Amino acid sequence: MHESVTKFIDDNLDNSIEDLKILCRIPSVAAKNEGLEETSSLVEKMLKDVGLETKVHETSGAPVVTGWIDVGAKRTLLFYNHYDVQPAEPFDLWDSHPFEPEIRNGRLYGRGVADNKGDTIYRIWVLKAFKETGTDLPVNIKFVVEGEEEIGSVNLPEYTEKNTDFITADAGIWEFGGAGIDGIQEAWLGLKGIFFVELEVERLVRDVHSSTACVFPAAASRLVWALNSIKDGNSRILIDGFYDGIKPFTDAEIEAMKKIDLHEDLQKKEYGIDEFLNGMTGDELKKAYYGDPTANICGLTSGYQGKGSMTVLPAKASCKIDFRLVEGMHPDDIHKKLRKHFDDNGFTDVKITYFEGYPAAKTPVDHPFVKIVERANQSVFGEMKIHMTSPGSGPLYLFNKYVPMVSIGCGDHLSKAHSPNESIVVENYRKAMHRIVAVIDEMSRW
Amino acid sequence: MHESVTKFIDDNLDNSIEDLKILCRIPSVAAKNEGLEETSSLVEKMLKDVGLETKVHETSGAPVVTGWIDVGAKRTLLFYNHYDVQPAEPFDLWDSHPFEPEIRNGRLYGRGVADNKGDTIYRIWVLKAFKETGTDLPVNIKFVVEGEEEIGSVNLPEYTEKNTDFITADAGIWEFGGAGIDGIQEAWLGLKGIFFVELEVERLVRDVHSSTACVFPAAASRLVWALNSIKDGNSRILIDGFYDGIKPFTDAEIEAMKKIDLHEDLQKKEYGIDEFLNGMTGDELKKAYYGDPTANICGLTSGYQGKGSMTVLPAKASCKIDFRLVEGMHPDDIHKKLRKHFDDNGFTDVKITYFEGYPAAKTPVDHPFVKIVERANQSVFGEMKIHMTSPGSGPLYLFNKYVPMVSIGCGDHLSKAHSPNESIVVENYRKAMHRIVAVIDEMSRW
Repeated sequence: MHESVTKFIDDNLDNSIEDLKILCRIPSVAAKNEGLEETSSLVEKMLKDVGLETKVHETSGAPVVTGWIDVGAKRTLLFYNHYDVQPAEPFDLWDSHPFEPEIRNGRLYGRGVADNKGDTIYRIWVLKAFKETGTDLPVNIKFVVEGEEEIGSVNLPEYTEKNTDFITADAGIWEFGGAGIDGIQEAWLGLKGIFFVELEVERLVRDVHSSTACVFPAAASRLVWALNSIKDGNSRILIDGFYDGIKPFTDAEIEAMKKIDLHEDLQKKEYGIDEFLNGMTGDELKKAYYGDPTANICGLTSGYQGKGSMTVLPAKASCKIDFRLVEGMHPDDIHKKLRKHFDDNGFTDVKITYFEGYPAAKTPVDHPFVKIVERANQSVFGEMKIHMTSPGSGPLYLFNKYVPMVSIGCGDHLSKAHSPNESIVVENYRKAMHRIVAVIDEMSRW
Repeated sequence: MHESVTKFIDDNLDNSIEDLKILCRIPSVAAKNEGLEETSSLVEKMLKDVGLETKVHETSGAPVVTGWIDVGAKRTLLFYNHYDVQPAEPFDLWDSHPFEPEIRNGRLYGRGVADNKGDTIYRIWVLKAFKETGTDLPVNIKFVVEGEEEIGSVNLPEYTEKNTDFITADAGIWEFGGAGIDGIQEAWLGLKGIFFVELEVERLVRDVHSSTACVFPAAASRLVWALNSIKDGNSRILIDGFYDGIKPFTDAEIEAMKKIDLHEDLQKKEYGIDEFLNGMTGDELKKAYYGDPTANICGLTSGYQGKGSMTVLPAKASCKIDFRLVEGMHPDDIHKKLRKHFDDNGFTDVKITYFEGYPAAKTPVDHPFVKIVERANQSVFGEMKIHMTSPGSGPLYLFNKYVPMVSIGCGDHLSKAHSPNESIVVENYRKAMHRIVAVIDEMSRW
């Protein structure tokens, strides 16, 4: 393999970490529309500095940054990443400032280090290593780095629909991945879809004294009843037709599932639970993990939330809820069904605001590129677990018909993506660079 | 009547308003344990300044301030007030600073002006008027001013149980009251009880990525289901035995109810509603107003509540809820029944924190003091509506067996007690002082 390239990576590890810190210091929170222009410019500059041609594509939202180098090779490898991050709230639960990354005990802490700035930077640095060591790239490279992944890639279709030639490649590496709870590296071949909404009920012009709850309608109770109506006590979703059209697992997927160990006991300990949802275990748990859509309350808000008691009848109540979708479901369809469900059940007073949504997508478990990634990983990390899909979401559906993709990355089960104290292991970050070098190497012989 | 006394009141209106402003500038929020010592000292000083003997009674919480003057009269009149206020949140909904009272268009705005510092100050100023004009008081006077009414008077029993002699009087004026939505003065003869709790569910050691909702338990859903289990879509409370022991209306109460007009159309317009709870109207609405217990969500909290979307599975969810109780119910009993209800329905994971609670109490509608107040009001304001009970709560039960009490005050239907922009009409405040002078006068001939 390319020893001068991997040596350069190791010798310059501090420098690449420094680039990552620089990227993480910009709080590019898509949900707040903060820092996105600035971050996209920085990403473009970094791509240019490692020898790529670049272009910044304006959209109705955050720009999409692309970079490419055509070395005339047989195969082309595409990277998908994003430069936006989740909000860092609640700040007081962070042990260090979310936007001032720092290393403690071999881990780098900061919002975005795992999701997804770490993976973005080390992939750029792999190209820098080829360039600085004067090593010929054996495959053509393309980068697509967007800035609204954390709000559902709402404007990414504006880019992808007009640039299907660019996003066509032999294979691609998706944004994230890493070590599981057992320390073994994991690859994800698919992503669930998502349908994210805010539900709001407003029943009075202002908050009133709670004594009048005997005669006035209560927004918070209306919201509770509406939420209760969409999911039963076993988390079965009660919206009419919600499960219609879901594709069953393929035989290859069922085979792949057999090789997976979800390490139930380790997870129970890690997350402080006595049992999984509905007491699921074994195959049932695996099937839910890969195949179940969800209706999850991300946030609930109403009335007084301060210390002690305040006797108020709140005028309004609201809820943020994300539905994870599997293959065969579409957010627009679920949107219609949710509205109908509320109307049919007397909840015409529940307002739905549609924030983001897209369908699920998967790369087949028996695709040749899956083997390439597996061999590349073997040479750096060793064993790898292949998941037919992540339970998480991403706009894979926009790319998947032009390029089969596998998601791997530098995270691990303690990375706390979307939560306080997000972090990565620096050593995994280093080895993830070696793995990309190995993927490029393997791909050149495909 | 005592014309020199009422003339003094009118001539010194600005001075009494100034005293009220001084009292309101201290944010004596019992829920936050703020400013209570300072406010109690100020109230004691004010009582002393108008010629009363005073005592500050320490409790496990805020001090209880008492003041008295025994002029050797046949009758004794007791005032119950409180110097604490509700939290002023959300501050951004106030048009002026909640703790910097100011007059706009004849209304004085500030947290506590209606509930209950206005009523406290003008009653003290009535005594000042007697003193400054050298007018003999024809009744003995007692004041009990506590500092934890807004958190359920949790420590007031420590005072009342040891001072039953002091709280024994021929009659008493309770803290609040004023003009209804039709502009007519209202007197309240009773108060509902209360049982205020926080419900908490914690199912994970930390917030996690919401994609894992397919396999992890969800605290927010558990809370929704638990809340849904305690009240059906018609607001009927489903806790076993919740309605047991409730006393039916007496014949005198049914007669009194007939005289009441709840001005349904005015209220609908004022609060922006198409109909009252469950479409109630007429006698049914009145019966609910005076006789229904409630289970009201005062606040809901879970997960991400900021702008836009954040896909998180929150580890915790909580809810503040107040139950209003009517005669025959006791908070300790409801507490046991609520715990049993949750346990019986599989919600052993819902933690109940009991914040405050006490039973309901009423003065009979045919008590002679009710007529005295009615006549006094007639001479100042004119007509008066007699309500057998307020839908609101207060620790009347601690006093009621030693002193029959009627609640009247300087508020009105726009006073927004417990809400932003709390206010009183200055002219009502002035006339409320005249009315107390008239009550004293009427009482001296009882």
